[in-house]
Amino acid sequence: MTSNIPEVVILRLPLYARVLRGLADRGEDVVSSQRLGDLLHSTPAQIRKDLSYFGRFGKQGRGYRVDHLLRELRQIMGLERQWSVILVGVGQLGKAILTYGGFAPQGFHVVAAFDSDQSLVGTSVGSLTVQASGELAETVKQHQPQLAIVAVPGHACQSVVDMVVRAGIKGILNYAPHQAQVPEGVWVRDIDPVGALQSITYYLKPNGS
Amino acid sequence: MTSNIPEVVILRLPLYARVLRGLADRGEDVVSSQRLGDLLHSTPAQIRKDLSYFGRFGKQGRGYRVDHLLRELRQIMGLERQWSVILVGVGQLGKAILTYGGFAPQGFHVVAAFDSDQSLVGTSVGSLTVQASGELAETVKQHQPQLAIVAVPGHACQSVVDMVVRAGIKGILNYAPHQAQVPEGVWVRDIDPVGALQSITYYLKPNGS
Repeated sequence: MTSNIPEVVILRLPLYARVLRGLADRGEDVVSSQRLGDLLHSTPAQIRKDLSYFGRFGKQGRGYRVDHLLRELRQIMGLERQWSVILVGVGQLGKAILTYGGFAPQGFHVVAAFDSDQSLVGTSVGSLTVQASGELAETVKQHQPQLAIVAVPGHACQSVVDMVVRAGIKGILNYAPHQAQVPEGVWVRDIDPVGALQSITYYLKPNGS
Repeated sequence: MTSNIPEVVILRLPLYARVLRGLADRGEDVVSSQRLGDLLHSTPAQIRKDLSYFGRFGKQGRGYRVDHLLRELRQIMGLERQWSVILVGVGQLGKAILTYGGFAPQGFHVVAAFDSDQSLVGTSVGSLTVQASGELAETVKQHQPQLAIVAVPGHACQSVVDMVVRAGIKGILNYAPHQAQVPEGVWVRDIDPVGALQSITYYLKPNGS
């Protein structure tokens, strides 16, 4: 049931979950594909098509049950369990990531942090002690984290990603301004603030639509 | 020529620009839609379709001229000019954003920073002095920045976005874990690290494809 689903649909699922959570928090029980489309800046037809990949959630003309759909989507996305994450790069951005309160409530727990800067190794950030990058492979072997967040400068990105992949990690969130190459079966998502700004400026030009 | 282009295509343009810049830096003159597809994790047909919205760049069977395509795309995206940006929220994340070296080389210049925390107002971060949020409207009026970066906690996001929109700014990069509502004609992009992680875990589940 969950094979051959286009990646672009998978990429939209977190947004569905976020919007449904908002509806649930406001006490709404049922939502139409029209309303979901409005909230997701998409068409009702697209919403119905996306959700049809995962089974039959809606009843014709009655909309979707918010709590049911949210629970099912979270199950499908693997969000009903806890995930262990390592962080590589404890500069200003890495520190912001470690003190960001948004990960843990969603089941993502940063369990170790690494930096190649010896002056940072051994220092405490939040509840973690920064480890040397050389210890990464051994720590991954011991604690089996599933995900890595990479917050290093662009020039260091590929070698850090290579190290993380060699250690056996299959999912990487990359904050570095560099598109890392990874082997088949490893998933990378880029945090790309410049790209995000660039996708706005098109609309702000005098001749933008 | 540039109207009615699907937003999803506009969202891909920064990635095209990034990949083409990489090819140009490696001294490659010509690139095929097949190669672009590989680099962009897309199909050659999708590449040709995307680029066809903006005119006829490629010659049948000969590929695209890298420098020409890059220059044209940058022109279309409005990247040949400089953009002024304000930052709202100078916590740990805001500080990381202010010291991030990736914006200015791409033409995005943070010209003012605001925070509601009086203990931060008047302090220096990089080359800027943090201003009180109450000064935002007046500063925007004077300096006419086109973009805002919002790096505040989720609960403060909507009111900050409202303030930024009231001041006349049409493009917002939002780091807060909250989907802000904005009027028609205002463009928001969310930096959503949790969503990015959630779009990976689907593939890491035992039954993921």
